Amino acid sequence: MNDVATAPVRFGKIALIGIGLIGSSLARVVRRDGLAEHIAVCARSHGTLDTARALGIADSTTTDPRQVVDGADLVMLCTPLGAYGAIAEAMAPALKPGCIVSDVGSVKQCVIQDVAPHLPEGVALVPGHPVAGTEHSGPEAGFAELFDGRFCILTPPSGTAPEAVDRIAALWRQAGMQVEIMAAQHHDRVLAITSHLPHLIAYTIVGTATDLEEHLKLEVVKFSAGGFRDFTRIAASDPVMWRDIFLNNRDAVLEMLGRFSEDLTALQRAIRWGEAEPLEDRFTRTREIRRGVLAAKQA
Amino acid sequence: MNDVATAPVRFGKIALIGIGLIGSSLARVVRRDGLAEHIAVCARSHGTLDTARALGIADSTTTDPRQVVDGADLVMLCTPLGAYGAIAEAMAPALKPGCIVSDVGSVKQCVIQDVAPHLPEGVALVPGHPVAGTEHSGPEAGFAELFDGRFCILTPPSGTAPEAVDRIAALWRQAGMQVEIMAAQHHDRVLAITSHLPHLIAYTIVGTATDLEEHLKLEVVKFSAGGFRDFTRIAASDPVMWRDIFLNNRDAVLEMLGRFSEDLTALQRAIRWGEAEPLEDRFTRTREIRRGVLAAKQA
Repeated sequence: MNDVATAPVRFGKIALIGIGLIGSSLARVVRRDGLAEHIAVCARSHGTLDTARALGIADSTTTDPRQVVDGADLVMLCTPLGAYGAIAEAMAPALKPGCIVSDVGSVKQCVIQDVAPHLPEGVALVPGHPVAGTEHSGPEAGFAELFDGRFCILTPPSGTAPEAVDRIAALWRQAGMQVEIMAAQHHDRVLAITSHLPHLIAYTIVGTATDLEEHLKLEVVKFSAGGFRDFTRIAASDPVMWRDIFLNNRDAVLEMLGRFSEDLTALQRAIRWGEAEPLEDRFTRTREIRRGVLAAKQA
Repeated sequence: MNDVATAPVRFGKIALIGIGLIGSSLARVVRRDGLAEHIAVCARSHGTLDTARALGIADSTTTDPRQVVDGADLVMLCTPLGAYGAIAEAMAPALKPGCIVSDVGSVKQCVIQDVAPHLPEGVALVPGHPVAGTEHSGPEAGFAELFDGRFCILTPPSGTAPEAVDRIAALWRQAGMQVEIMAAQHHDRVLAITSHLPHLIAYTIVGTATDLEEHLKLEVVKFSAGGFRDFTRIAASDPVMWRDIFLNNRDAVLEMLGRFSEDLTALQRAIRWGEAEPLEDRFTRTREIRRGVLAAKQA
């Protein structure tokens, strides 16, 4: 794989459908490193497209998915997951043979399910997930270094052309990522605990605080440095993107949520009955994982 | 109050009982600004006391709470909350008239309950809570700037000498904090949602991940950048300190936990039934609080 890692990857035309935090960050990498002759950007709103042009990350823009993929060697879906099916259907007739369709979504089984059926022969599907992000949204929020040192997971369905997988892997390596390949189902389970459940919980607790009496709410903001502010950051992430993640990774999220709720109930019981030892045990064991995160340089 | 805010605050001897993250950070402030003639430090372990001396933040050290408070003008309790009662009982006979006893604990009703009954006439109790911290523990983890721009809450019981409250307020202002005075019960309720519940939830989810099958656990660490790593940071906080917080703020934590669980169950149901609108609504409303946190410069 080393030759792949160091080989320069080049595309003639890259079509980015959706140009938010991830899409615009990728566009900046492509621009910075000259990875494409032409970056074509598709978004629903003209305002977003104007911004992309002003940022210098779009050579051409359109609101039409069919038009943007015309002649493209790589089509990268960077919209919320719920839009994939309709986009795939709309763009399919214009995809040229040899084109690679990939994406950056946080759930992967649904991509194979929603996109693959629409793709013509000779077009490869390489679902991908760069595990990186911030709480900010939109094309202005992107930056080329977003991916640096993070992991990108690819989940090509069996039978995908290996050259297509290699090219997408090379693209993300060029962006500074370590690339891992795994089954889509496994990806969805791992991300349910490392990303989807944390977001669900952050949204919940910030929502719980939002519902407090007005005077208490002001104080919640004032004294947020005690831990709450980290949750507010996570819960400031894009609402539509996250809505779609939960709707599209239902089973894995519900399973992890079940485990979490059992564990929380056990701690709740220990607090109610004043049981010091199980609390201390639990709080001590969690330090081990933090050490792992620090050792893996993911902190 | 303006004259209080700008007046220099000086103590003859300050006794710090406990010299972890908060105690040692305060000691650094006292040293930096020359707020005391003598800093006396008490801790259970000789190793900790050696460290405090090596760091230059202790003029004298002892393992005996009674000895450390001898002649002190200010006694600051900086240990886990569970130790307060025994310390108060041990030190009480040596407290000199006019001495102020204060603390930095994250729960306040229990301080009044556990400490006040032991204090002799002429000694003022000013419970305090500097709302600041990191996930690191121990005397080496402290730094003088920890308190900068954060809030400190004081919860003096009714009848506390106003001069004593003013002096403690001036001390924390000198450390860079904004001081708020409120009832202990109110403090405990606000902190239950802004600090205690977030920590309980972070400990829980990191614990849930710890219990996963071994191969999944490794991947959890690897792909933690998707949100999980923020929880691992919070869940790396001192286990004994947090055990004592939950045991000593039981009612408020259980109440907020009840609200949280209801809200989480509602979102769980929306995910199970594929209800897009309530999910998006909820995820949109939480952004408002983030804006408040940013506006209050607590991010």
